[in-house]
Amino acid sequence: MYQDFSAKTSPETGAPRLAALRERLALSGLDAFVVPRADAWQGEYVTEADARLAWLTGFTGSAGFCIAMRDRAGVFVDGRYRVQVRAEVDLSVYTPVNWPETQPGTWLMEALPQGGRVGFDPWMHTRAQIEEIARALDGSGIELIESPNLVDAIWPDRPAPACAPARLHPLAFAGESSADKRRRLGAALGVPAAVLTLPDSICWLLNIRGADVPRNPIVQAFAILHADGRVALFADPRKFDADLTAALGPEVEILPLERFEDVLSALSGPVMVDPATAPLAVWSTLDGETVAGGDPCILPKAQKNPAEIAGMEAAHLRDGAAMVEFLHWVDMNAPQGTLTEIDVVTALEGFRRARGATDISFDTICGAGPNGAIVHYRVNERTNRRVTPGEILLVDSGAQYPDGTTDITRTLAVGPVPEETREPFTRVLRGTIAIARARWPRGLSGRDLDALARAPLWAAGLDYDHGTGHGVGAALCVHEGPARISRISEIPLAPGMILSDEPGYYREGAFGIRLENLVLVEEAPPLGDAHRRMLAFRNLTWVPFDTRLLAPELLSGEERAWLNAYHAEVLTRIGPLVGAEAAAWLATACRAV
Amino acid sequence: MYQDFSAKTSPETGAPRLAALRERLALSGLDAFVVPRADAWQGEYVTEADARLAWLTGFTGSAGFCIAMRDRAGVFVDGRYRVQVRAEVDLSVYTPVNWPETQPGTWLMEALPQGGRVGFDPWMHTRAQIEEIARALDGSGIELIESPNLVDAIWPDRPAPACAPARLHPLAFAGESSADKRRRLGAALGVPAAVLTLPDSICWLLNIRGADVPRNPIVQAFAILHADGRVALFADPRKFDADLTAALGPEVEILPLERFEDVLSALSGPVMVDPATAPLAVWSTLDGETVAGGDPCILPKAQKNPAEIAGMEAAHLRDGAAMVEFLHWVDMNAPQGTLTEIDVVTALEGFRRARGATDISFDTICGAGPNGAIVHYRVNERTNRRVTPGEILLVDSGAQYPDGTTDITRTLAVGPVPEETREPFTRVLRGTIAIARARWPRGLSGRDLDALARAPLWAAGLDYDHGTGHGVGAALCVHEGPARISRISEIPLAPGMILSDEPGYYREGAFGIRLENLVLVEEAPPLGDAHRRMLAFRNLTWVPFDTRLLAPELLSGEERAWLNAYHAEVLTRIGPLVGAEAAAWLATACRAV
Repeated sequence: MYQDFSAKTSPETGAPRLAALRERLALSGLDAFVVPRADAWQGEYVTEADARLAWLTGFTGSAGFCIAMRDRAGVFVDGRYRVQVRAEVDLSVYTPVNWPETQPGTWLMEALPQGGRVGFDPWMHTRAQIEEIARALDGSGIELIESPNLVDAIWPDRPAPACAPARLHPLAFAGESSADKRRRLGAALGVPAAVLTLPDSICWLLNIRGADVPRNPIVQAFAILHADGRVALFADPRKFDADLTAALGPEVEILPLERFEDVLSALSGPVMVDPATAPLAVWSTLDGETVAGGDPCILPKAQKNPAEIAGMEAAHLRDGAAMVEFLHWVDMNAPQGTLTEIDVVTALEGFRRARGATDISFDTICGAGPNGAIVHYRVNERTNRRVTPGEILLVDSGAQYPDGTTDITRTLAVGPVPEETREPFTRVLRGTIAIARARWPRGLSGRDLDALARAPLWAAGLDYDHGTGHGVGAALCVHEGPARISRISEIPLAPGMILSDEPGYYREGAFGIRLENLVLVEEAPPLGDAHRRMLAFRNLTWVPFDTRLLAPELLSGEERAWLNAYHAEVLTRIGPLVGAEAAAWLATACRAV
Repeated sequence: MYQDFSAKTSPETGAPRLAALRERLALSGLDAFVVPRADAWQGEYVTEADARLAWLTGFTGSAGFCIAMRDRAGVFVDGRYRVQVRAEVDLSVYTPVNWPETQPGTWLMEALPQGGRVGFDPWMHTRAQIEEIARALDGSGIELIESPNLVDAIWPDRPAPACAPARLHPLAFAGESSADKRRRLGAALGVPAAVLTLPDSICWLLNIRGADVPRNPIVQAFAILHADGRVALFADPRKFDADLTAALGPEVEILPLERFEDVLSALSGPVMVDPATAPLAVWSTLDGETVAGGDPCILPKAQKNPAEIAGMEAAHLRDGAAMVEFLHWVDMNAPQGTLTEIDVVTALEGFRRARGATDISFDTICGAGPNGAIVHYRVNERTNRRVTPGEILLVDSGAQYPDGTTDITRTLAVGPVPEETREPFTRVLRGTIAIARARWPRGLSGRDLDALARAPLWAAGLDYDHGTGHGVGAALCVHEGPARISRISEIPLAPGMILSDEPGYYREGAFGIRLENLVLVEEAPPLGDAHRRMLAFRNLTWVPFDTRLLAPELLSGEERAWLNAYHAEVLTRIGPLVGAEAAAWLATACRAV
């Protein structure tokens, strides 16, 4: 079992832990201390050792922070977590704050009108984050002060940091040796060295993978890339066995994490650091000249090479087979009305495990009926809902395979189709198809294509309050920068980028619809005017859409042709990979509309 | 006759005039002098008195500039004018320069490696323009020096500045009194005064119109708006008769243009000036504090009020009737193969004149066959082409009426339809329809919608190298800022804005297709989720598209329904306004596909 369904909240520990923190505040001469959800690696998931916000306050959401003061403690959460925070924290000592509507700077100035000293752990915040708060506090007399971590000081049984074995990511999947990557990127730095603090960048650069963090096959580490291609890697040496150390070779020096600060402070010459992702502590520690620059791995990592693409395609065939077996199982079992959301999540994990998945790529979102309308819903034992015939079921899930990462959403009929879902389902599918079929001139960003996915919904006065797509790593993090299909994404789409294509529609208290495939940016095949070099998406995900929910008369001829061709290809690709019963089910599911 | 078809080029005068300018250069101690196409008002059209670039070099394009030096003279033109410039200037003394690929700063540094003094007339350039060149020259030792206009000094028979009578724009068309506008905008300035240098802003603010400049019903003037609503108007007083002066009232003081500098330099307190549109001379003249801020009239002018919208609608009905009579006339006459492009332009003017047009709103673009592929083509006696059966004809035109401004493009079959035009014609029409039908959440800009117009072309590997739409004034300039439908337009679309919707496709040497209606941004009618406040376009242009050029099987059901409903409405609205023969023709043209 990968996913854990226990309801983790423990509001009752919030008050005594806050009291202990306040003692530390007094001892440190601080008026406030900031406890973010993030760890030093700024990822989406944190380990138990880094779950400081949850340990202190009880709040388990994936984003937010607490500002603890002597007389109050605000828990800042965004729109996704307004309800959840009230269930998880002790409201007699913690005050939920609507963020980003209320900014920490504004809140601090109200709470500390005479000025004051606000501590923070510089390893848990990026320079960009601290600068933003500092700008807001400008002229207020409130000081931001680097401090040891006060939560760690009061957390007696804090779990040890993760120390899972690292492993080599085979060249057959990586497509380029680490030495080649290191020398290529090193030579292009333009400065003697760059600091890397994102674990997926480091894993990509070194062709290694790990298991420190749930759902993401990464190794918690920091690194310094030198212009000559050498790397100093800071991580618990116990993660690296002799074979792996030998494979990394003499140009990669493994040093304990504790040495990172010493080595940083001894670096001379200009050093490149990414203000958007590196902890502020990196800047505070560096003695010499620094150059603000983006993490040099981000763009090469996003533009997958042919081996990475082949791995993603192979993983998607296995994942497609698992999904088809799962969808067949849902159809056999759900209409009886005995399944719960947890049953569904567990069964899906089983089908994927049987196909060689090493983990799920994120906690499955499985929402029956009205739970489908909660965009970031994660079922637990308390919220677990029966999958009721006559409702629809939204399942957004993915897996990690040795060669690739998947992410797919399907929305399913359970028994009789609720008629009010047909039109929005069809409009969401039209949006998914519009992105899948898109062809566009080089130079455009995700922002320039976002409207194509939404126009069919807009035409009916509908929309969705999330982006249309995110980047996806190759056997790495399922949410990977920098490109997105979103109103706010200005990064040009480039060949090799893999993105999700996932429009949706949510009717609060009633149902949710989302349909998601992964797509690969590539050179568009020649067509039309030869001087126009265009890009297009190639589809990676091969799993049928539930056509029982469709209003086919709302599809254009082109959309219908795309859907029928897609289903024919699903049947050809996946049919041979599944057993006879699932194959027969698939043939029916893939019938032309 | 509004439009002039004489081929205006006179390359032979270029050399002696350049020689005269060079004498002035030497006398002034300058190494170079910049001669822009623009005048002090930065508009699209210039009067004869301001046509300095054409007078000096022979180049008559609507954008560009010359940098004249002692040993060379570059004429900088963009992609539209690469061919035309070579026909119009004496190539033995002028060197065409590809702009913006080659920037003036780069070119100057190559030509003046030891540094030098580059003169320019600060009334002919905005601050933003000069700052851009200055940034490029930073560290080169080349100085930019404000200078009297050296072209005026060598232009003995320079025409007198325009002095057409100004007239009141009736309140029935303006919808808000000038006093109300002046007080409303003055109160919102936040500073004691703002300098206005755009004639259409001044005309809009004062509810006046004029005839100084071809195609644009504006008065050449500058103005200062005070926070209390008073305006100092700088213009030739002969343009204002006693009635108009009385109507403007005591809060509008008319002063000779020559007084502008004195009054500017005497202004105290912070004064707002628009760096993007005001001549640099305004900044150089102001003694007190200046605040860079956008022209305060631009946004209120763009968001038309109900009276302005009603005027635009009424003008579009008259213009629609003229266009239908014209299209009927083309169909009766063109298939014989005896018409030329000039005949077509002249006939169209006649139909509009008969409907009360006071001018055309820009020089008509009428391109037969391959001339249709030249996006900014203007026919003259030398290029005039026979409208040949078997070719298609592109006509992009518009008119000024007392109550509104029009702009419409139709692409027409002449005799037998060239089969290779059907698919691109249909795809362009699909783009026009996609914008016309668009509905979108508040807050989006033209950039966010641009892809909707292009997607049908992109799908076939086609595209067009111009924006999808521009703002249009109400009985003002046909190209009006700030909003556009374009990849580079970040201004949110807002109710009351009027834009063109004009995708196209151009096959060089063969044919050009463009289809253009004007559309009005308004609150979308309630539909779908009530909490989503959306905007939509309302159509203003009622003229049939030439369905003989259509490949109807390429339209979706929704597109076909839109087209048929549009044509039914054209017939209902325009049929009663034209004679029996044209009405019968219109009924045929509006038949459902």
